[in-house]
Amino acid sequence: MIQAYAPASIGNFAAGFDILGAAVADVEDPLRLGDIVTIEPAEQTSFEAMGPYAGSLPGDPGDNLVVRARDRIAAVLRANGAELPPHHLVLQKRLPLNSGLGSSAASIVAGLLAVNAFAGEPLDEAALYRMAGELEGTFSGGVHYDNTGPSLLGGLLVIAPAGPPCPLPFPDELRMIVVHPDLELSTAASRAALPREFPRARVVEFAQNLALFVHALHVGDRALLERSLRDPLAEPHRAPLVQGFEQVKRAALDRGALGCSLSGSGPSVFAVAEQGGARAVRDAMVAAFARAGVRADGYVCVLDAGARLV
Amino acid sequence: MIQAYAPASIGNFAAGFDILGAAVADVEDPLRLGDIVTIEPAEQTSFEAMGPYAGSLPGDPGDNLVVRARDRIAAVLRANGAELPPHHLVLQKRLPLNSGLGSSAASIVAGLLAVNAFAGEPLDEAALYRMAGELEGTFSGGVHYDNTGPSLLGGLLVIAPAGPPCPLPFPDELRMIVVHPDLELSTAASRAALPREFPRARVVEFAQNLALFVHALHVGDRALLERSLRDPLAEPHRAPLVQGFEQVKRAALDRGALGCSLSGSGPSVFAVAEQGGARAVRDAMVAAFARAGVRADGYVCVLDAGARLV
Repeated sequence: MIQAYAPASIGNFAAGFDILGAAVADVEDPLRLGDIVTIEPAEQTSFEAMGPYAGSLPGDPGDNLVVRARDRIAAVLRANGAELPPHHLVLQKRLPLNSGLGSSAASIVAGLLAVNAFAGEPLDEAALYRMAGELEGTFSGGVHYDNTGPSLLGGLLVIAPAGPPCPLPFPDELRMIVVHPDLELSTAASRAALPREFPRARVVEFAQNLALFVHALHVGDRALLERSLRDPLAEPHRAPLVQGFEQVKRAALDRGALGCSLSGSGPSVFAVAEQGGARAVRDAMVAAFARAGVRADGYVCVLDAGARLV
Repeated sequence: MIQAYAPASIGNFAAGFDILGAAVADVEDPLRLGDIVTIEPAEQTSFEAMGPYAGSLPGDPGDNLVVRARDRIAAVLRANGAELPPHHLVLQKRLPLNSGLGSSAASIVAGLLAVNAFAGEPLDEAALYRMAGELEGTFSGGVHYDNTGPSLLGGLLVIAPAGPPCPLPFPDELRMIVVHPDLELSTAASRAALPREFPRARVVEFAQNLALFVHALHVGDRALLERSLRDPLAEPHRAPLVQGFEQVKRAALDRGALGCSLSGSGPSVFAVAEQGGARAVRDAMVAAFARAGVRADGYVCVLDAGARLV
């Protein structure tokens, strides 16, 4: 039996809409925030979804991203004159859908990794990376690597238009606080909230802020990191879709977070804080959601190392 | 007598429209590409412009940027109850106007530095930086630091919206080739060629490319530097205003330049190349301009250390 784990991820990581993404692991339970896919030989090929969020998945297994991932690898094998042996494929759907936590990316990546291993590794890492982005594109309406990339490779990544993504250094003593409110917001709806065009001054502000964020991480300038850990592009348009967001952000910053923004397209929210204050930031964010009438779960996280066989 | 030199600069340094700027020095004659301002005590205050491009300056001395710089510092002194002593102020206007070489910035910065020294240094570096950007704004229609910043402080800088600019590491073995064609193009006309709004995909492409450029410099990734040393935002709109640009760019890249784009708002063009091939790149660019019917001067440059008393 082969079992693959792929972590949750924060896409649109603050300064980097469609460009920066981070894989995360709950410090208290490193495999909690991710999906698991299992594959083992069987007499007949079958697929099964289980886990807390299996009930939210599409009813037709053919629409499941893990099945589509499996079919892609089977097609690669067939093109080489080989055949994927009959198997039993299981998705443990542990990440909530439409949460902004890279749930679809985690299913895709765990599926690709497990099936690729089962098939004798016909695909190398670069091919898995491309295939994961393409599968994400069929789901979210555009090829984006800022969730699939980190979920596969781990760390905080700058996605590159050609070639592999670039890992950014990230201070060991910082934590990411991920808070998932009990709200649903589809990626498509959240993308629709964005304007199609942006004024020149906003374009410059966005790019400048991103450049300073990357620079701050490389030189270890905490004050500059704090100033640039923000999203001037998408957040102003998307935040109104997330009930309580402004209060939650205010609560995080008041507790000393360096920054706070939407995770991916929302509704999850993430903050970055020093290790020592991370729990207090998490609790303040969950409490602020509660005051806005929204139940939420909060996690103190580090960067995850990326998808792996477990 | 106090004499200040301020170097030419490459604004909009390829990937960084309004964000990246570099101060340059001709390797054959390090003070060739810059303006010089001299100030000395005199019985009556007077101003004089000389040098190869003095004839292109505004006829009214009150419109001269060096005189305006002097007046700003005089105003600071007056606010503190002091008075600038009578003096003779001289601008050696050595950089061509409207060239894309940061000519106005060099005059402003040399003027501020000379007069500030003459006045007993009422302004510190941060105040000079702000004042230089503001004066540039009165001239070019918007506060921009991507020429005044490098001219004052030297190096290749990321301009920050608040606080000081951030110097980027730059490989010692790279050269900047600056080619100034005998064409005039006002900053205002070149800005007018830019759209007011940009589509989302272009915004992401621009910011992503800039982030990768900054990252490439920090990690010393020459291949990534080459891929990201380009301007997807302004160049497509401005290049048609510069006769011969596409041929010159092609000539530079064919000779092994890592990248080639407009310097500032043009018409000057710059390329980045390895030290060993820099002269060949320069000669090919000048020859390409000649084939397009444009006389041009070319210089192989290193980063300049910024304005200084000489």
